[in-house]
Amino acid sequence: MMSWTEKNHELVKEFVFDDFIQAWAFMSKVAIVAEKMNHHPNWTNVYHKVSIRLSTHDAGNTVTDLDRELAKKIDQLL
Amino acid sequence: MMSWTEKNHELVKEFVFDDFIQAWAFMSKVAIVAEKMNHHPNWTNVYHKVSIRLSTHDAGNTVTDLDRELAKKIDQLL
Amino acid sequence: MMSWTEKNHELVKEFVFDDFIQAWAFMSKVAIVAEKMNHHPNWTNVYHKVSIRLSTHDAGNTVTDLDRELAKKIDQLL
Amino acid sequence: MMSWTEKNHELVKEFVFDDFIQAWAFMSKVAIVAEKMNHHPNWTNVYHKVSIRLSTHDAGNTVTDLDRELAKKIDQLL
Repeated sequence: MMSWTEKNHELVKEFVFDDFIQAWAFMSKVAIVAEKMNHHPNWTNVYHKVSIRLSTHDAGNTVTDLDRELAKKIDQLL
Repeated sequence: MMSWTEKNHELVKEFVFDDFIQAWAFMSKVAIVAEKMNHHPNWTNVYHKVSIRLSTHDAGNTVTDLDRELAKKIDQLL
Repeated sequence: MMSWTEKNHELVKEFVFDDFIQAWAFMSKVAIVAEKMNHHPNWTNVYHKVSIRLSTHDAGNTVTDLDRELAKKIDQLL
Repeated sequence: MMSWTEKNHELVKEFVFDDFIQAWAFMSKVAIVAEKMNHHPNWTNVYHKVSIRLSTHDAGNTVTDLDRELAKKIDQLL
């Protein structure tokens, strides 16, 4: 599995699925995990692609352990 | 994969997942497919289980081709 | 707003919406709240109706404060 | 209600909700409507904000009636 890259003080990863419905099912899992952690992604969806960018607002928009934990949990959802 | 069973004029199948989040992701896909077909399930969820019952209201609550088509599409989502 | 009723050791309430999409949006909120509490409903959806039954498995399937708390949070989602 | 603006060959609108759960419920409705139309948004969510950009890929990424129809349906979901 491709790993996350750190770019402009964000953890970034793009996920590609077969179609919109599969992408949406993935997002439905991420939504629950993010809300449970009370740490939410900056994410963009176009059809079968989901781009996720993680950073911690309360730490001046830098990458923190909270972002690394969410990134790990998102990978485990696949 | 287990098949659907016809019982009391309904197509019935139970799906079991690892946890609630996985069950919910499955339901998120079924919801879209059902609304697209304008044919909706009678479904029950408890934690990691999803029980789906299909019948056609407009045909006197019997099993019709519409139910068989939705059942097939649901299986393809797995 | 109608209140929850206690029946057969469960808190029970039925919610009726305009259509399936509105019912589904409500369920999407309840799903997140339930997973956050790690307390999940026994719920059934048919088109625009959502029936929710709450009880606590670990307390011998009786109604506990956990169920009352989830019921209250569900009402606040409306 | 604020209207959509046309910018760089896209219909653009930002929606702001009380919190992530409310934003997510809105997205859950838009997802179904978009898939039903087989016309999908380019959309970004951060916590309580949802930014939607609509254009028609098959028309060289310009704004078409399909985008205006989806925009209208999205507004009706609120």
